[in-house]
Amino acid sequence: MANQQFKDCIDACAACAVACSYCATECLKEANPEKLVRCIQLDLECAAICRSAVEVMSLGSEFSADLCRVCANACNACAQECEQHAHMGMDHCRRCAEACRACAKACEQMATPV
Amino acid sequence: MANQQFKDCIDACAACAVACSYCATECLKEANPEKLVRCIQLDLECAAICRSAVEVMSLGSEFSADLCRVCANACNACAQECEQHAHMGMDHCRRCAEACRACAKACEQMATPV
Amino acid sequence: MANQQFKDCIDACAACAVACSYCATECLKEANPEKLVRCIQLDLECAAICRSAVEVMSLGSEFSADLCRVCANACNACAQECEQHAHMGMDHCRRCAEACRACAKACEQMATPV
Amino acid sequence: MANQQFKDCIDACAACAVACSYCATECLKEANPEKLVRCIQLDLECAAICRSAVEVMSLGSEFSADLCRVCANACNACAQECEQHAHMGMDHCRRCAEACRACAKACEQMATPV
Repeated sequence: MANQQFKDCIDACAACAVACSYCATECLKEANPEKLVRCIQLDLECAAICRSAVEVMSLGSEFSADLCRVCANACNACAQECEQHAHMGMDHCRRCAEACRACAKACEQMATPV
Repeated sequence: MANQQFKDCIDACAACAVACSYCATECLKEANPEKLVRCIQLDLECAAICRSAVEVMSLGSEFSADLCRVCANACNACAQECEQHAHMGMDHCRRCAEACRACAKACEQMATPV
Repeated sequence: MANQQFKDCIDACAACAVACSYCATECLKEANPEKLVRCIQLDLECAAICRSAVEVMSLGSEFSADLCRVCANACNACAQECEQHAHMGMDHCRRCAEACRACAKACEQMATPV
Repeated sequence: MANQQFKDCIDACAACAVACSYCATECLKEANPEKLVRCIQLDLECAAICRSAVEVMSLGSEFSADLCRVCANACNACAQECEQHAHMGMDHCRRCAEACRACAKACEQMATPV
């Protein structure tokens, strides 16, 4: 339904954006949100960039590779932070970290000139 | 990975946003884009509203139902237009219409108070 | 530069989206972010809806009035919350509340059938 | 109301996003939209990236400089295209080109490490 070359990366970015927004709001509901400040911050930044990547790739844009480069960096930073909380029973962080790593991988392939 | 109550609707809106953006750019590549002006216009409007619905539901927002009401209307309008071109060999319009109808249905269920 | 009929409302929504995103991240930096959880949550929801309203009005969409109705509600809810913190030395909340009230007013005028 | 360091660039990107979306829909209304296909396409891509830049800078994100680099490229490409139509009486293209050049300049300053 989308540009076939971008299909998998669009799906990964869309899933990551949702996981990041959800993780941010779940972090806010935790007993000690003050310990999750950087997690929430990176969730919001990563979600914004992922949403943009989805839109730009859906348009088949010539700037997709450039944006995917930025997106991969944001996803890896967010994953690294979420992974620190994933073992503390925070399932939203574990799922978010997984979505971020998968998205980073897809974006890195998109960003690399073939 | 997202608010479970919103899961299906988020997926439908995300797929619809991608289909609409893709349809708009494919319409621009057709031999007679001047005949597809309203289709492109509604694609862009529908994509914008669907993207917003995805984000708002991902945040578990109390405004989700209100936004889904608007989204259902936009999706139905876009579907109605795309369906007129779907039989003229324009596969992007056919697929977009399908995504719009599925999204409208999911949003209507979300918009209806239980 | 934009649809003239929407000009003022676009400007108000764009300013509100920026103020809300900024307020959310400044709240996260406060000494007691756990007391600002609802503020951050509404900031994020309001920002998402305002961004959508800007885009939809920029496109001159027929769904602008419907979306502005939702946006006015989100802005008023966010303003009400931010106003509670505005007197506690949180300048970002004071400014955000002002932007939200101005945006709600502009959106209500847009949403009202003339 | 926003991160002061980003203030001017946020304003330029927000104005550019609106000008690009408006230009796209005005191009669709022209007598010969088929001659404006690349203009519409770049308008949509540039608007998407500008919106993302606004959001990311509003969040005070560490990825702002990277995104501004991509945004500057998109703005210059869109400006170059719009400038070709600006002398043909298309005021929306003239205004869009101006907004794109101003945004590119602001983003380049943001993207450059001080």
